[in-house]
Amino acid sequence: METPADIHFSTLMSVEVSVSACFDIMRAVIQRVLSASVQVGDDVVSLINRGLCVLIGIGLDDTEQDIEYISRKILNIRLWSNADEASDQRWSKSVQDLNLSILCISQFTLHATLKGNKPDFHYSMPAEKSRLFYNQLLEKLKHDYAQDKIFDGIFGAKMLVNIANDGPVTIVIDSKIKKHNATSSEDVTE
Amino acid sequence: METPADIHFSTLMSVEVSVSACFDIMRAVIQRVLSASVQVGDDVVSLINRGLCVLIGIGLDDTEQDIEYISRKILNIRLWSNADEASDQRWSKSVQDLNLSILCISQFTLHATLKGNKPDFHYSMPAEKSRLFYNQLLEKLKHDYAQDKIFDGIFGAKMLVNIANDGPVTIVIDSKIKKHNATSSEDVTE
Repeated sequence: METPADIHFSTLMSVEVSVSACFDIMRAVIQRVLSASVQVGDDVVSLINRGLCVLIGIGLDDTEQDIEYISRKILNIRLWSNADEASDQRWSKSVQDLNLSILCISQFTLHATLKGNKPDFHYSMPAEKSRLFYNQLLEKLKHDYAQDKIFDGIFGAKMLVNIANDGPVTIVIDSKIKKHNATSSEDVTE
Repeated sequence: METPADIHFSTLMSVEVSVSACFDIMRAVIQRVLSASVQVGDDVVSLINRGLCVLIGIGLDDTEQDIEYISRKILNIRLWSNADEASDQRWSKSVQDLNLSILCISQFTLHATLKGNKPDFHYSMPAEKSRLFYNQLLEKLKHDYAQDKIFDGIFGAKMLVNIANDGPVTIVIDSKIKKHNATSSEDVTE
């Protein structure tokens, strides 16, 4: 049976490329927050104040390179102003610079494609394998930043995630675009 | 000066295609919510109960076709179960089917690219033009669904957006993949 990507390929090459490059990725939806928490049933299982709430979608063919890239971007992306300087110093401080917290939540729906109006998840890594990858990402974040700054939900549980999106500021990061492109402007200007 | 897209183009054609297809789009981050609200200063300017909180990013070259596509998907995407039937009836009901509300927020940061770790917004439509597009999207949603079901923040204001993400369920919809591909599986299976 043809998959949506196969059909895209047969009708328009450029679209197929964009579909594969957009979905065969680790994807992070990063929200800058004043607070965020996770409830499972009546219990609050995690709570942070200022920082990032990061929804993580792990793609079918993700590797450690994707974990490395997404982890680095979460820790270093500059989403805050420099309060000590002139007001045009926007986008100058990272979560680490300000010693803030990160609440990560696994979110397999980020790889949804649409069959008509019904979401389809065949680009998501299956649950048991993605749990390992997701845990690796958490360990990487704790290792590179601080054990006590990384918070988590409960993998696979039904959760209520309360997000106080500050700004709002929401960034979508996809891993593969970087991975295929080691000489991009990212590295030049970093 | 070379833009990131120029450099991608000169180093790897397939990556350039994916970058343009991923960023030159109207993008919606759709969160299924138990409630969502917008505060500006101390005032709550909008509040919904169950429904969708949709962050909308308008791309540099978006047209009415993008508004049409994103509006249709917001109204019809099936993110709820059918409570009246067997428990495997997931992803069967839309916001309209259940007569729920939609809170839309303009979010120019969704088109961020990264220069090193600093977000860059040159793929976002400039504010005055995007305000018109954003208002057109709101009008389209109200026209096709119901005036009293569509809520809004305050365009351009500093807002605190409180999102109670239920599941969580978060979907990222990009408009151009559809627009270039009228014979895709989406229409076949719709």
